[in-house]
Amino acid sequence: MSVITLTTDFGLQDAYVAALKGVILSTNPSATIVDICHSIEPQNIRQAAFVLSTVYGYFPRGTIHTVIVDPGVGSERRAMVLRTEEAFFVAPDNGVLSYVLLDASAGKTPSNAGLMELPPGLQAVEITNPEFWHHPVSATFHGRDVFAPVAAHLSLGTPVHRFGDPVTSLNVLPVPRPHIHGEGTLTGCVLHIDAFGNVVTNIREEHLPSGVPCIQVAGHRIVSVSSTYASAEPGQPIALMGSSGYLEIAVRNASAASVLGVQIGDGVSVYTEPRPPGD
Amino acid sequence: MSVITLTTDFGLQDAYVAALKGVILSTNPSATIVDICHSIEPQNIRQAAFVLSTVYGYFPRGTIHTVIVDPGVGSERRAMVLRTEEAFFVAPDNGVLSYVLLDASAGKTPSNAGLMELPPGLQAVEITNPEFWHHPVSATFHGRDVFAPVAAHLSLGTPVHRFGDPVTSLNVLPVPRPHIHGEGTLTGCVLHIDAFGNVVTNIREEHLPSGVPCIQVAGHRIVSVSSTYASAEPGQPIALMGSSGYLEIAVRNASAASVLGVQIGDGVSVYTEPRPPGD
Amino acid sequence: MSVITLTTDFGLQDAYVAALKGVILSTNPSATIVDICHSIEPQNIRQAAFVLSTVYGYFPRGTIHTVIVDPGVGSERRAMVLRTEEAFFVAPDNGVLSYVLLDASAGKTPSNAGLMELPPGLQAVEITNPEFWHHPVSATFHGRDVFAPVAAHLSLGTPVHRFGDPVTSLNVLPVPRPHIHGEGTLTGCVLHIDAFGNVVTNIREEHLPSGVPCIQVAGHRIVSVSSTYASAEPGQPIALMGSSGYLEIAVRNASAASVLGVQIGDGVSVYTEPRPPGD
Repeated sequence: MSVITLTTDFGLQDAYVAALKGVILSTNPSATIVDICHSIEPQNIRQAAFVLSTVYGYFPRGTIHTVIVDPGVGSERRAMVLRTEEAFFVAPDNGVLSYVLLDASAGKTPSNAGLMELPPGLQAVEITNPEFWHHPVSATFHGRDVFAPVAAHLSLGTPVHRFGDPVTSLNVLPVPRPHIHGEGTLTGCVLHIDAFGNVVTNIREEHLPSGVPCIQVAGHRIVSVSSTYASAEPGQPIALMGSSGYLEIAVRNASAASVLGVQIGDGVSVYTEPRPPGD
Repeated sequence: MSVITLTTDFGLQDAYVAALKGVILSTNPSATIVDICHSIEPQNIRQAAFVLSTVYGYFPRGTIHTVIVDPGVGSERRAMVLRTEEAFFVAPDNGVLSYVLLDASAGKTPSNAGLMELPPGLQAVEITNPEFWHHPVSATFHGRDVFAPVAAHLSLGTPVHRFGDPVTSLNVLPVPRPHIHGEGTLTGCVLHIDAFGNVVTNIREEHLPSGVPCIQVAGHRIVSVSSTYASAEPGQPIALMGSSGYLEIAVRNASAASVLGVQIGDGVSVYTEPRPPGD
Repeated sequence: MSVITLTTDFGLQDAYVAALKGVILSTNPSATIVDICHSIEPQNIRQAAFVLSTVYGYFPRGTIHTVIVDPGVGSERRAMVLRTEEAFFVAPDNGVLSYVLLDASAGKTPSNAGLMELPPGLQAVEITNPEFWHHPVSATFHGRDVFAPVAAHLSLGTPVHRFGDPVTSLNVLPVPRPHIHGEGTLTGCVLHIDAFGNVVTNIREEHLPSGVPCIQVAGHRIVSVSSTYASAEPGQPIALMGSSGYLEIAVRNASAASVLGVQIGDGVSVYTEPRPPGD
């Protein structure tokens, strides 16, 4: 129960990430600290939420995930500890845990943004007890002075309720879901573009129509879903179920996003007819 | 006493950092190795010294800080082990430990560059004993062959005096201090620009005049010191006491350095009158 | 026997590297995981092979080196475990272990690409036993679902033969060797350019003619081999034996590759006469 992960928008040019680690090791010298990603675009809560969603399930039970993308630091935004069946999360209450909450609610929650009631079995507190913080607390670096020391104390076994007052709802971002039109057609959108330029959509395997699907994105049409990158001709876009469980568009040995001119938020149509409705 | 930190200008494109870690783990398999920063500009001793200064105080007592920004490798520059009350430092004697020495001397030292006498309570040796090195020693990579193995042996408890001959002074860089003009005015300068584009000055809280200060930098005037980034209007520069204890200029959700056109070394004026002297 | 290294082309913008670590720690919570490099150019097998070759010898005996540069993922390319006298390697059979195999064969192998017979004393298996994988196995991320869990089980002491069927030959890339012309002259080529812009050739100390060698590269002539970067005049190229054992061309405090206009694959001549043959 002593793995602590870090997801931030701090970059690697400064010593901010190292400050978190120094503080954690000062409290728990035997913590195992793992970097998830420090290249989140500054203040991009949505990107942090997505990147975390692709990886937290692969960590040992009891891992403590610390997410510090925190444009509201020092304002009235709440700082939270969340406990699910599998893991702990220490983060500002600004939506970075949206996918975690939606995963835990088994899709029963609205896709609208705003306060979402805590699904059954989860526990959350607002971090209000200064006993576990690093003092003096700076106004601008709660990662170092609040989140990291709380994560370290969690890793020592301090129970969640010690960190502050229980809360019953947390903020979630709007998480776009594909729209099923019936007749084997649906429209989704681009959620993420990874470092290879692979285009990750919000369409999962269970959304796909039976039969051979066509995918249309940014004016390009891709026929059928492949199983591997290697099955593609160089330069030709392919669609495949990516390793995070979402339909992806890829170009072998190249950036699909560049080749196709795709951006986050672009629409993606899937259909089994030769043409999409209204085309 | 087994945390070893690494600060280098090696970047992350090669395996140079990994070579340090391999050598350390070969000597002490249970060392906890923490990256402070490997994105120091090549050979930028001043930047390495500053980045280290912002973080070393957050590590556990007895941490061994290894700093390898070493343009003089293979020349006559000395390699050092420094022991302070709190930590160990393994580094070339080229100024990368300037802030550590100034912190330890409680401001009693000159701000001029050059050899500085070791403050009381500190111990330093020149690394001359090849018994603890990795052989053969290359002419160009003392990080791997000298500094890393010395850090590893320190982490096993080898006493400082075993590594070489005692020295009584170390090289420091000129560390610019703000100039107090009296009448509530002072001039400082820009020490550092972080990865967010926040502008870090050399002005600390105790330097600030009483009353509501105005800050002038690169032709921009900022009235009053804010407490958080979130308190700023988007696009408007604010001044605040940063997490490292220095007055910073920031622009919410943007790079203050870019927005204001500020560079390292630029002058910063602070005053309580409506205009600075001679404006 | 519990150090696991990671070399990938995943970059640091996503959580792919973290997924490997989560999977490893889920199987062996006490593994020590070290990043060798994640900035290999996408699908650049040759670069991965070279970067690995410069560092694996510096790790403790029994270290498990995991190399995931795998353009053929999901195709018929084999996944391998290789055991040498000193270390374990977990990687696709696409040439990323070329230097490891050539080192182990003491130069007795051909420099041609293709299947190379396993040198004596080495053991290799194709990873075919799904018992040790992370299920479900995605078609596109064997790093997470096959290589990382196999590395973790190796670190727990699972014997190599348990992972699959023995193989007797592995794929190697053509590794260029210098051509000795006799009369103290030879021609080699540029193998690698590091993050400092240092130009690494394929010429080793034992290849150099006796006497004072001249080196010619990209139209520039460098007289004699220096021992340190610091011995050079700023802006002037020098040749020196680099820390990886290869002849390097460097420019003090600058990128030799940029200053000289050198690229990977460029020819390098060494001679002891005032001019190279045919000049």
